[in-house]
Formats: sequence, C-alpha cells, structure tokens
Amino acid sequence: MGPPNETSPRGDARQPRGLRDLSGPLLRRRAEMLATIQGVYDQFGFEPLETPAFEFVDSLGKFLPEQDRPDEGIFALKDSDDQWIGLRYDLTAPLSRYVAQQGQNLTLPFRRYQVGSVWRNEKPGPGRYREFIQFDADTIGSASPAADAENCLILRQAMRALGLGVDAVSIGVNNRKILDGVLAGIGFSEGQNDPRALIVLRAIDKFDRVGIEGVRDLLTGGRKDESGDFAPGAGLSDSQATAILAFMQAGRSSRAATLSALVDVVGGAARGQEGIAELQAIDAILTGLGIGDDEVRFDPSIVRGLGYYTGPVLEAQITLEILDDDGRPRQVGSIAGGGRYDGLVSRFTGKPMPATGVSIGVDRLLAALSQLQPSAMRASDGPVLVTVFDRTQLAAYQMMAAELREAGLRAEVFLGQGGLKAQLRYADRRNAPVAVIAGGDEFAAGTVSLKDLVEGQAMAGQIESRDAWREKSRAQITIPRAELVAQVRAILAAHS
Amino acid sequence: MGPPNETSPRGDARQPRGLRDLSGPLLRRRAEMLATIQGVYDQFGFEPLETPAFEFVDSLGKFLPEQDRPDEGIFALKDSDDQWIGLRYDLTAPLSRYVAQQGQNLTLPFRRYQVGSVWRNEKPGPGRYREFIQFDADTIGSASPAADAENCLILRQAMRALGLGVDAVSIGVNNRKILDGVLAGIGFSEGQNDPRALIVLRAIDKFDRVGIEGVRDLLTGGRKDESGDFAPGAGLSDSQATAILAFMQAGRSSRAATLSALVDVVGGAARGQEGIAELQAIDAILTGLGIGDDEVRFDPSIVRGLGYYTGPVLEAQITLEILDDDGRPRQVGSIAGGGRYDGLVSRFTGKPMPATGVSIGVDRLLAALSQLQPSAMRASDGPVLVTVFDRTQLAAYQMMAAELREAGLRAEVFLGQGGLKAQLRYADRRNAPVAVIAGGDEFAAGTVSLKDLVEGQAMAGQIESRDAWREKSRAQITIPRAELVAQVRAILAAHS
Repeated sequence: MGPPNETSPRGDARQPRGLRDLSGPLLRRRAEMLATIQGVYDQFGFEPLETPAFEFVDSLGKFLPEQDRPDEGIFALKDSDDQWIGLRYDLTAPLSRYVAQQGQNLTLPFRRYQVGSVWRNEKPGPGRYREFIQFDADTIGSASPAADAENCLILRQAMRALGLGVDAVSIGVNNRKILDGVLAGIGFSEGQNDPRALIVLRAIDKFDRVGIEGVRDLLTGGRKDESGDFAPGAGLSDSQATAILAFMQAGRSSRAATLSALVDVVGGAARGQEGIAELQAIDAILTGLGIGDDEVRFDPSIVRGLGYYTGPVLEAQITLEILDDDGRPRQVGSIAGGGRYDGLVSRFTGKPMPATGVSIGVDRLLAALSQLQPSAMRASDGPVLVTVFDRTQLAAYQMMAAELREAGLRAEVFLGQGGLKAQLRYADRRNAPVAVIAGGDEFAAGTVSLKDLVEGQAMAGQIESRDAWREKSRAQITIPRAELVAQVRAILAAHS
Repeated sequence: MGPPNETSPRGDARQPRGLRDLSGPLLRRRAEMLATIQGVYDQFGFEPLETPAFEFVDSLGKFLPEQDRPDEGIFALKDSDDQWIGLRYDLTAPLSRYVAQQGQNLTLPFRRYQVGSVWRNEKPGPGRYREFIQFDADTIGSASPAADAENCLILRQAMRALGLGVDAVSIGVNNRKILDGVLAGIGFSEGQNDPRALIVLRAIDKFDRVGIEGVRDLLTGGRKDESGDFAPGAGLSDSQATAILAFMQAGRSSRAATLSALVDVVGGAARGQEGIAELQAIDAILTGLGIGDDEVRFDPSIVRGLGYYTGPVLEAQITLEILDDDGRPRQVGSIAGGGRYDGLVSRFTGKPMPATGVSIGVDRLLAALSQLQPSAMRASDGPVLVTVFDRTQLAAYQMMAAELREAGLRAEVFLGQGGLKAQLRYADRRNAPVAVIAGGDEFAAGTVSLKDLVEGQAMAGQIESRDAWREKSRAQITIPRAELVAQVRAILAAHS
C-alpha cells in the first residue's frame, strides 16, 4: 500500500480541506500575541518544552471527544520501522509521555509551556480546522487546588495582557468530581468509569449547541437534529436525567451561591464532596486576590470534551460578539480551557502523578483579537525600494540597499521586470515608504533621487484622479549619493 | 486498516526513533536565533507566510534525494476524505503550491519567509532526525541572477548577525546549468531530463562522504561501501566520468579563476554557457559589494541533493570543528542551502515562473551555535519562589506572587509537598534568585523573610561542605510585608 505512483504532470494547485495558509499582518499579529502569552507564562515560573509532532499511537491514548473508533480523530500511519505513529491531537498527551519518560530526572512540581500545531482527522467546517495551534501551560506533580486556582490566574492574566478585560472574557470553572458524585447518586457504579459516563459527558458538553432540552433528549431516548440525523441517547430514566440537569443548572450569580446550590444536588458520595471542597479552596484563593464573580464564575454546565480530566476543569470564553466573514454577528465561544488530569502520566508509570493545566486556542483567539482590536492589525511598514534602471549597475543598487540595511532599515532592490511606473506600482503594493531612483544622470553626477511614497499615499486619498495626481505630486528630491542613508532616515522620521 | 485497537493499559513511555524533545535553555537560545534570522529576512524585504503541515501528495512532488519509490521519504496517509495527503518534506514545495494557487492576487516579485518543521520518513541516525526545522526565504517572479546573488547576501548577513564570521562559515555557489552543459558534452540528450542525470547528481552529492574515487565508482560500475553494501553505478564510460570529475574539480582559490577553469570544461552547449554567464553576473555583484573569495566561493562540487533545482545552487558550511556528544571533534557540515527552481510553480500552472531561495537548517545551526557560543546558553533566571508554610494562607502567598509579577518579575508559589528544606532544594533546582518565607510569626507581625539564594549559590561553589555551609550562610532578612517588592528588587539589583 502507498500513495498513487503516478503524479499528473500538471496538477491543479489546491489544498486538502480544513487547512489554510496564513500571511503578512495576521502572522505578525500572532507573533505579538504569542510573545505576550509567553511573557505571562514566564512570569508564572513556567519553562519552555517542545515535543515532536509524532508519538506512538498508544502513547496518545483515546481521549478525543465524539470518536467511536480508536483511530478516529488521529492522523496515524505506519512508519518505516513498521510502527503505528500518530500526530498529536493536543499537547497534553505528549507532555504526559515526556514526564513519564524523564522519571526521576524531573524536578517536581514541573511547570512547562509549549506552543505548537495539533492535528485532528475530523470533518472540517467553518472555523473548524484540521490543523490548529495551542499554547499550553501545565503544572505536573501538584495535587493542590492552588494549582487549579492558578490556571484561572494564568488565563486571566494572559487575557488582560492581551487587552481583553472583564467585559470581554469570562472564565468558568467546574469539577468533574462533582459530576462523579451526581452519577454515583443516580446509581452509576464507578463514576466516570461507568461505560455510560462518557455518553453523559458528551451530552452535557453539547449544551451550548443543543440547549437544555437537547441535553435531556441525549441523556434519555436520543435526539434528532435539524438535518434529521438521529443521535442515540444514553438510555437514562427521566429521574436520572433530571438529577444531571439539576447539576448542570446549579450555576448562580456568585461563586458562593453556586457552591450552596451544588451542595444541594451532589448527594452524599465522598468524591462529590471532595469536588466541592476543591472548588471552595479555589474560591478562597480567588476571593483573597480580589477576583470577582464576574471574572471567574463556577459553572456546572462546563465539563470539557476530552475524556482525561479527573478534577477541576475550566474554560475561558469571549463574551463580546464578533462579525463573521459575511458581516453577521457570531459568538466566538471558548478560546481556552483545561483542567486536572491526574491519570495521564500514571498510564505509563503505574504510579500516581497529579497534573493540571490550561490550553489557549491560538487561532480562535487570534481571530477574535483581529476583530476586536483592528488597529493592531495594520500592515507592516514596507521596505525602502531601490529601483533599477541600469542593469550594468546592479552592484551599485545592491550597495545602496546594503547601506540602508546596515543602518537598521528594511530595504530591497527591485528584482522584477518593468520601468519606473511598474516599479512604483510594486512599491505601493509593498507599502514601501521611499523609492530610491538612480539612472545614468545620477550615476554621472554622484547623486540619487528619493521619492517620498508615504506623502504621495496620504494625499492620494483626498483627491479624485488618484494615479495621475500621485505621479506629479509625490515629493522627489535629488541628493548627493553619500547622503542616502541620512536623507531616507529624514523622510521616515517626518512620517513617524 | 487502522492502528491497533488495543492499547496496553500500562505502556512504556517511549518515543518513535529519530524524534526528540527540546527544553529550557536550548529552546530559549533557538528563539533568539530565529528572531535574529527573521530580523535579517525582514531587512531584506521578505514577509511572513505559514502553510499547513499537510499537502496533497501530488503537490509535494518527487524531488527527495535517494528515494526510489515515489512515496519513500514522505509521511503519507489517506485522510477522512479518502485523499492521499503527506507531511511536507521541505518548505519549497508548499510555497510553490501557494504561489500557483494565489495566481494574479500575488504582487511579483513575491518575497516570503517561513519557519517550520519538515518531516522525512527515512532511517534516522546520529544528528539525522525525522522531524527538523527549516527557515526559508524565497523570491518568486525574478529570473535575475541578482536574486541568486541576494541568496548569498542573505545567508552571509544572517550568519554575521548570529556572530559567525568569515572564519566560521563558508558559502559555496555552483550552477546546475553548467552541469547540464557538461552532460550535453558527454552525450546526454536532454541535460537533467536524461534519466541518468539524477544518478549523476546523487553521485556528485556524495562527494563529501565517498571522495573523488568513490564518485568515479558511482558514475561508472558501482561502489561497495565499508559495510559491504553495493551501490550500482550510472554505467558511464571512463571518459564520460572523467569529464564530470573534471567539472567537479574545477574549483580554484578565487571566483575568477574558477570561472576560467569552468569555461575550459563546460564545452559548447548553450545551457552551460548560460550557467557561466549567470555565475559571472553573481560574481560582479559580490565583488562590487566587496565580498571576498574567502566569504563566497564558486565550488563546482556543490550540486544539492533535491531534484528540483534548475540554475544557481548554494550551500553554507560551518568550517570550524565542533565536538560531538562523546567529545570527539566532528564537522558540522552544511547548515544552509538553496538555489533556483524555475520549474516548481509551473508544475501547477503550466506557465513559467522563476523562483529562487535559501533554507537554513535550524537544528544543525543551533547545535553548532550552542557549542561555538556556550556563554549564550546559560539557564534563564529562575522565578522568585514564594514558599508555603501555612496552607490556610494560600491566598496570601498568591498575593505576594501576584505583586511580584505585577512589578514585572518572575514569581511562583511552591505547589509541591515538603518543608523548608525541600522547598529550598526546589528553589535551587529552579535557579530561583530569592525565596520568600512567611509563617505564623511573620503573618502575626506583618512581615516576610527573604532568602538571597544567588549569594548562597555563588559562595557555595568555593567551599567543601556545600549543603551545610549553604544552609547557614545564606543571607536572610526580615522586612515589613509592604516592602516585599522593593526589597526583592534590591536583592536582584545587587546581583545584576
């Protein structure tokens, strides 16, 4: 087996679905955003780690939501060693493998951040890609709820550093142990290990999309969606479903009130009580730091889709509406999430190893930021363009560009075809602030001419015949060759 | 078919061969290195682009060296759309697909840079990984040899910006067209399109490993290596092989002398003459910029392994020896390369589109830099550690850390288990400069204690009983709680 042997000599240029190219201003904005997040992770004491894209498939585990076959959701293949390897679908599974592999070498608690692509072999859709970037911070080796509280602090601080205030972002926290308590109360034997628990988890996780009655249907007899597709239900009784819905709807306007409501629905199971005590500990830290109920709320409808969480889970949402590609308002939804996964490392080692962390969905957050902060999305300043009129003087043109770069400026020699007009058109498209012009006259006289393109662009917006006007209006000066750098700098300074 | 359905409940933590994790100081050093290279690419007028990891397999083409089956070398799989997709093996094939797809939307010449992982499904070896990072800069839409000369300028500037001078790096340039001329002279009908041409290319590319007699064997009857494996030859006659070897060995101590020697061996084929004229144009620019024969040389033994090059090719080598993991001196070899590939975009469009660029091998360069500039590899300054003695005061400890972070410092609250000794040991391993200590006495008195760990570490190196000495010697002061930030800053300032 292998890919087809024959390549068409002239294939169409196309891309697999659910993948995309990013360029220019968006990438520069993303780099700034990632640097800001990294700064926050650094401040909280995390250190960088990078794991490869591939892991053995059995290292990755089967924790993806809504996947029924074990290989579904993962891009997997047999490598040249005849081993099944798969692309990571998150950064948590590789971290767990790393921690288990390092063993005693690792100083605990181990705090690391990692940014990188993850891949999911699923059906793509609008805003749903098969390759996307996550930026995670995790703390391994701490069972303390203080580490879970820090997840909230880190996310909150990252959002603030990005200019997203309490009006723009809401952080919700829940605890899987409380759900376990509720499940025990309705007769599930082993909490999350009951085979029906995963179906319950997925049903609750669909709340945002299907509403409370939709969740009830998924918990009981099943649900038919708008397209007519039928999703089978968990087969719970009405009273069982009601208990779960009461849990999901226990959210109140304050963390304290939500805790009271949860005490009423959780029942007597020890694991549920433990979950409430952990939320109380988290609340004590948040309240002690003056973090209000509007900044971090307790929300029992948050469960997170991944199967591996064992304790507190959290999710950050952009609460402002943004516009989609067609100009219609839409919800951004969750841009970060995470939680405690005390069982992942012990899959490898057999020894307990508490772990908790957060993951920021970089692409979604970038999409939101580029709409909420459009001014930060301006195109970069283009390079000074050294135009070319005399091909025997290529070294002289290169020397001009080299001098400008030496002075710390962006500069390029025009390498395409065409005369002055074509070269100035190129300069405009490249957002070049200045064009350097030198032909036979200038070389003979030891001069160069400079065309101020920023001035031309600014004025061109105000009048009618843009091109014609631009051509004559643009300030052009002729200066001694030796003053090239100083005069270009003077023009740039006048516009900054 | 799919990956195995059964996962062992307790797998060993291990990694597929040829992959690795990177952490801490090395990653921070790499980030600096990439920022430096990006700064140079930016200065030359390039803009960022990012393409996804996957392309359709037929978009990637079959240009990898030493691969006989079409899928060899590429990690390929059928995705959920039942399409063959593959992980990119370089950044040039995806760029070509992008340019073809953009068509008229693209302003030409188009100058872009891209950094990212590439994957090769080959046998890994020492220093030979199946995932590695390349950082490319390419110019699309310029047929001018000036664009090829700029490849040299960009690589040279990037190396200088990284602190690698003419004593450390050597750049070699050749032209595939000259080889085409030589091949035409020995009776190859269509230059590189002759089926034997690729075998010749691979033989020349092995020169560094097998020497000149090894290349002769590979060009003629074949060669048996040390392990006894036999590599079949190209079946050329002795006189044909001699012509190719004469070409390979035409390198002289100056670019001008090499050009003269090449004129003697290239013969009358138009394409070979064209290749020499291009090298002459490149030499004129380099010489005009004062770039000496020691910085950029013409080296006819450089052909580059990838099959898609059509004109000038170049390669940068670290000429200083470094030590391998066992302390033995070894050559770093090529850390960057590139060339002209005028046929790649037209594979998609059927229209000619000239293109040329350079690619820096980030991992090899990083390995070299970390040996050549060990001082730049110091560990980052660790966070201030807020130790924990009273678990009912977690919010108060978190407030201390929050204040320190607010002041721009790295700080973390200890989240693990253990008393003062364990916490200070953790602080040492984390390279923490200061430990903040507060127990019942301090909380009652409204004070905190600070332990200066840098001083302790510095002195500890000088005496014998490190641990015992450290315990008593470390400066510890008790200060009003309100002065926490100011006093921590004072300690850090005293050490900086």
